[in-house]
Amino acid sequence: MRIYVYGKPHDTGDKFDDYLDPAKTAVISIDMHRGHLDPSPECPCPAPRAREIVAPIDAFHTQARALGLPIIHVRSVVRRSGVDDINGIPAAWRRTFPLHVGPIPNSDGHAIEGSPWTELVTKVAPEDEIVETKRRLSAFYPTDLDFLLRNMRVETIVLNGGFTDCCVLNASFDANNRNYRVIVARDLVRGTDDNLEAAALAMVSLHLGLVADSADLLAEWSRRKAGRKVA
Amino acid sequence: MRIYVYGKPHDTGDKFDDYLDPAKTAVISIDMHRGHLDPSPECPCPAPRAREIVAPIDAFHTQARALGLPIIHVRSVVRRSGVDDINGIPAAWRRTFPLHVGPIPNSDGHAIEGSPWTELVTKVAPEDEIVETKRRLSAFYPTDLDFLLRNMRVETIVLNGGFTDCCVLNASFDANNRNYRVIVARDLVRGTDDNLEAAALAMVSLHLGLVADSADLLAEWSRRKAGRKVA
Amino acid sequence: MRIYVYGKPHDTGDKFDDYLDPAKTAVISIDMHRGHLDPSPECPCPAPRAREIVAPIDAFHTQARALGLPIIHVRSVVRRSGVDDINGIPAAWRRTFPLHVGPIPNSDGHAIEGSPWTELVTKVAPEDEIVETKRRLSAFYPTDLDFLLRNMRVETIVLNGGFTDCCVLNASFDANNRNYRVIVARDLVRGTDDNLEAAALAMVSLHLGLVADSADLLAEWSRRKAGRKVA
Amino acid sequence: MRIYVYGKPHDTGDKFDDYLDPAKTAVISIDMHRGHLDPSPECPCPAPRAREIVAPIDAFHTQARALGLPIIHVRSVVRRSGVDDINGIPAAWRRTFPLHVGPIPNSDGHAIEGSPWTELVTKVAPEDEIVETKRRLSAFYPTDLDFLLRNMRVETIVLNGGFTDCCVLNASFDANNRNYRVIVARDLVRGTDDNLEAAALAMVSLHLGLVADSADLLAEWSRRKAGRKVA
Repeated sequence: MRIYVYGKPHDTGDKFDDYLDPAKTAVISIDMHRGHLDPSPECPCPAPRAREIVAPIDAFHTQARALGLPIIHVRSVVRRSGVDDINGIPAAWRRTFPLHVGPIPNSDGHAIEGSPWTELVTKVAPEDEIVETKRRLSAFYPTDLDFLLRNMRVETIVLNGGFTDCCVLNASFDANNRNYRVIVARDLVRGTDDNLEAAALAMVSLHLGLVADSADLLAEWSRRKAGRKVA
Repeated sequence: MRIYVYGKPHDTGDKFDDYLDPAKTAVISIDMHRGHLDPSPECPCPAPRAREIVAPIDAFHTQARALGLPIIHVRSVVRRSGVDDINGIPAAWRRTFPLHVGPIPNSDGHAIEGSPWTELVTKVAPEDEIVETKRRLSAFYPTDLDFLLRNMRVETIVLNGGFTDCCVLNASFDANNRNYRVIVARDLVRGTDDNLEAAALAMVSLHLGLVADSADLLAEWSRRKAGRKVA
Repeated sequence: MRIYVYGKPHDTGDKFDDYLDPAKTAVISIDMHRGHLDPSPECPCPAPRAREIVAPIDAFHTQARALGLPIIHVRSVVRRSGVDDINGIPAAWRRTFPLHVGPIPNSDGHAIEGSPWTELVTKVAPEDEIVETKRRLSAFYPTDLDFLLRNMRVETIVLNGGFTDCCVLNASFDANNRNYRVIVARDLVRGTDDNLEAAALAMVSLHLGLVADSADLLAEWSRRKAGRKVA
Repeated sequence: MRIYVYGKPHDTGDKFDDYLDPAKTAVISIDMHRGHLDPSPECPCPAPRAREIVAPIDAFHTQARALGLPIIHVRSVVRRSGVDDINGIPAAWRRTFPLHVGPIPNSDGHAIEGSPWTELVTKVAPEDEIVETKRRLSAFYPTDLDFLLRNMRVETIVLNGGFTDCCVLNASFDANNRNYRVIVARDLVRGTDDNLEAAALAMVSLHLGLVADSADLLAEWSRRKAGRKVA
């Protein structure tokens, strides 16, 4: 299968076969919610570059479900009282990110439980699973994602969503440290900008796992489900 | 104090005063051991760019100790049997990093308990602490670093060592998620190359905490120890 | 204050003053939901002995809130799909507990998200917090309780609820290992039976923290809030 | 196989076959070190009741190794500086246990790294593994035991050592919460006293897993290794 190593295409041959068994793989979609993607000026933590991957992620999920892969949506939610963020120890990005992008008017509204900002923009099928105690950047701490993956007997995770250079990269590190095989779907993630997106994908490809196109992953899983040998 | 936001200098004014209390800060030095830094061709996981920061890190640690800050050295160690890496579920970098740099002849020797590759190249003072159950990339999982920092009642950590775009960045994410205030000492870290080093520092500066020069940190701590107002 | 050491009353004098600062204390109430407490024969995991502490816990919480202490309700919830329990790796108690009490007809319904069995029987005030990713016995793993307590800068936790010899004891161990000071409200917990309840309280009192009556705790906190010296 | 449910013998039939596959099982021996077992009056945390199980544990380990089971020794070790215990946030037992047993003269010496008190009294074979960042009561937090077990692809753990009602029970809870199948070797553990030992075993048998005699476990594993049907 074709992967990308520091941005350059590379054919894996059969060297990463153990990454590609659909029966042991779950797709994890990170923070595709209105708090990042809503077009309104009230959007509390805007990630407008990721709007263009909503439809492609939906299409990928549809095909992955058809192949029997579980889809797990991870979303940031903090308690209404704000005790686990702005009224507790506030997340660092609230203070650092504005140094780069300027003031974020409604950032206090980010991820508040029960608010529209936590609604997923991508489609959620009845059989999908949701993890919603992501409180900071990690999909793993302090959530039950690892516990969930163990129960599913998953060994490989395929990540999509946003920011490539923040929560997606963080999930890649965390999954790697917990011995999951990590694949990032290169066309289904978006970063802060082109530069940091490419750098984050390069880091994944060198240290953490595979970077691949979603179409190649789907083709690979289909072939394996059909019992055919890898091309 | 001067920090760097996406590579550009920025004066914090007093907006990050809570990051700069030496009484609540620990310095964490990551993987400055012979397994990365030894000049021999047998070096199992070479990070030659980091050799030039050995002396500067030692100097920084000497001054930080004089100001009363604890120094914690984190190093990768895996069991002699290899059960927690090459004879268990091998670390992904063993398979992905060579796709970029070519074969790494002695990589199986990396971090083996009791081998010379685990020896720290930087100086360890009797009062320093060591964390040595780093098994993969994270300084936090599955180590006792978080437990140690709680016992020390530390709130801010200052990171140095290598790779900026791998274990240092991973430690920055992990510390951030656990609510520590994160500072990366910009001149005391080295990455895979200039590009990924700069990108990793940019990611820290936008999402995770502060990027600052070690001399500025020392000056700031000295001023505060002396009870003088921040410049 | 009076505590109980292996069942015997003991006056602490001022030796445990650091356990008794209301400003650093949170009350944690464990699994006081219909899945344990409902009187119907459908109750999926009956703990009838704990029904008698519903009103006393409510009264304790009312007084604790009045003194400014946060109340955290922890409840077991598993995903509708059952993937994190009966359709994943089933909890051991489902197989072992019936060896003692006989078949539990509706145990598959236990803690299913959105079902009435997850409803709290005790009162929840608007300012209370809820932790609801308790998937097995622990209140800490894989939940965000530790993360929440850090944000609250809590150092002491006071436990009530059920089972004394199961989830309450488990929470006591977990909190102890994470360096929280642990107090179990002796009159506000119930165990499998008198014997195991007393044994669990003895274990807490020897290894983990303090066992005290709720009235004594309230009196102690009141005195301290009023700035009066401990009796 | 014969197990004990709340102290009463019970024949499992084939209902717990999944617990008994030697290929997926590891033996975990907890804190059989001189800090608990040394007969001298200087012993910093005496657990004299466990001295009588040293030889039986050694014999069990010898036979388990012959059947191919890995042995993992977990021992308490704290840093020389005391920063992660007496000079940090001291363990609660240091203050509570003496309320029951009277002053423990040398308790400050408990588990100090490099001291003789951390030496294992049971035999350690070259192929055994050691976990030695147990800082409090748990064998799992903040150690790398879970990480190690994942690398070993272990699903069942068999516990021996001491105290039944403290660190052994804590390990049983932790392993259960992480979805390991838990077996406690009833004849190879010792508690604070007979009462708490029996109560802890009862708690394990009701909520956490199986309580069985070591001879029965060995017989069962032998039968399975030989491909013979369970009796």
